[in-house]
Amino acid sequence: MTPTIGVFDSGFGGLTVLRALSARLPRARFAFLGDTARLPYGSKSRRTIARYAAQSAQFLVREQGAEFLVIACNTASALALDAVQDAVPVPVLGVIEPGASAARQASTTGDVLVIATEATVHSHAYAAACQARGLRALEKACPLLVPLVEEGWTGHPVTAEVIEIYLNELRAEAATRGMQQDALVLGCTHYPLLRPLIERAVRPGVKVIDSAEAAAQAAVEPFNTQAGCSIQSESAAAGSDWMGGTSNPTPPQTEIHCFATDSVEKFERLGSRFLGRPVGKVELIDLGG
Amino acid sequence: MTPTIGVFDSGFGGLTVLRALSARLPRARFAFLGDTARLPYGSKSRRTIARYAAQSAQFLVREQGAEFLVIACNTASALALDAVQDAVPVPVLGVIEPGASAARQASTTGDVLVIATEATVHSHAYAAACQARGLRALEKACPLLVPLVEEGWTGHPVTAEVIEIYLNELRAEAATRGMQQDALVLGCTHYPLLRPLIERAVRPGVKVIDSAEAAAQAAVEPFNTQAGCSIQSESAAAGSDWMGGTSNPTPPQTEIHCFATDSVEKFERLGSRFLGRPVGKVELIDLGG
Repeated sequence: MTPTIGVFDSGFGGLTVLRALSARLPRARFAFLGDTARLPYGSKSRRTIARYAAQSAQFLVREQGAEFLVIACNTASALALDAVQDAVPVPVLGVIEPGASAARQASTTGDVLVIATEATVHSHAYAAACQARGLRALEKACPLLVPLVEEGWTGHPVTAEVIEIYLNELRAEAATRGMQQDALVLGCTHYPLLRPLIERAVRPGVKVIDSAEAAAQAAVEPFNTQAGCSIQSESAAAGSDWMGGTSNPTPPQTEIHCFATDSVEKFERLGSRFLGRPVGKVELIDLGG
Repeated sequence: MTPTIGVFDSGFGGLTVLRALSARLPRARFAFLGDTARLPYGSKSRRTIARYAAQSAQFLVREQGAEFLVIACNTASALALDAVQDAVPVPVLGVIEPGASAARQASTTGDVLVIATEATVHSHAYAAACQARGLRALEKACPLLVPLVEEGWTGHPVTAEVIEIYLNELRAEAATRGMQQDALVLGCTHYPLLRPLIERAVRPGVKVIDSAEAAAQAAVEPFNTQAGCSIQSESAAAGSDWMGGTSNPTPPQTEIHCFATDSVEKFERLGSRFLGRPVGKVELIDLGG
């Protein structure tokens, strides 16, 4: 049996994680929920985000039969991983730990920078995950980057200028702490769309870590093991059947069902930028909020 | 008896309307609700915005005893005025009609430009209200302006550049239609904080219409009449007692109670920028969403 993997976010940003996941698991079935009626999570409190995330998780497990969940949202991963794990009886993976692990692999100096939304930074979830891996991390909130991506200005000079301002402020702060950073973590699922501009703005020798890629890469192993256990009872071969390599970055054949709590039209129009292929028909659902 | 005026918005922006209202009605009691857990409304659908706005209105009337309501949010005024009027048994005033009336007064050519959020523009509420007054209006969504205000970049060169880009696009579109605009309506309650930059970016002879000021100005008359009716039964003098002039732009003595559905700390910190004085203690409430 093909396992259903539930992926959720406050909006479309998490489609960058789904894109990276589907490239690695092209034969899995994916149910993606964007809680667009209540986006953005980035400026909201832990209590509110935990409630919203738990509702999204319950929809995917109860209504869509998801056997695994990926929180494709840094803010929700930072503030609501525990709440989601309490709310559903399936394995749940966030994106913070994989991002920190990728930073650990990339850094030789042990000093890394993290850019993210206000709520993610305020939670210091990346700093804690980095510290647990022997890294020193300095985090900075960049509230204008998500709106710039959603305006479609992913290659715009204004966006380049805003990135330069944010990174200059971050580097100045890092310098006062004597940091020798050699990695920058993109701690928001919108930021991969800005990667070309960000690559141009970082100093030579600083590696850019894409949280979506890191999460998908890290997700394959636990998912493989989990799927192997649950699938072998019905079909020993299924485990390898729905797994795939990364040769096709956006498999057109992967079964993806998208749900949103608002703005289905906008989701369908903008979502393809993040997914790298048309998202298809998006179904409107009501989480009661 | 001092009447209670309920004012609501998706966030803090509506505090610019409250500021303008309190300058005119310094002795009224104001209850302000910012539905911050679900902001921004600007990118959401009519159905969702109508539901949210009705819940806010019901809280102010049922829990706070508001006898009049002002929807201090262009998006909710554009998309949810009818829904709010259906949801509560008190008079409700939006900000679109006053904005259009002020444009009518300001314009001699009959051609006006309107900048607003995506949802307000998509509703074409300003175009309809202007057309009803014999004006031709061209509307443009400026999604980056609210985030720039909330980042505190109200006088920043990047913000000036973004305003220039948006206005150039709008003027180019107006030129293709042979328009001779002489007024620009700020159709979002965040935009008054950008007024100095916007004044510098408009062409000579184009008047800038502040929707917050226009709404407060227009609100005084109906409120006076309504209050006169409801108040005279208890105190014939009350009508004049709680009214005031505009000599004091932000009366420190005006009784203002603020409520938010999230981020009380952020509301208290940022709200003063919009209100022009400290907002005081903000009470957290739950609208169930």
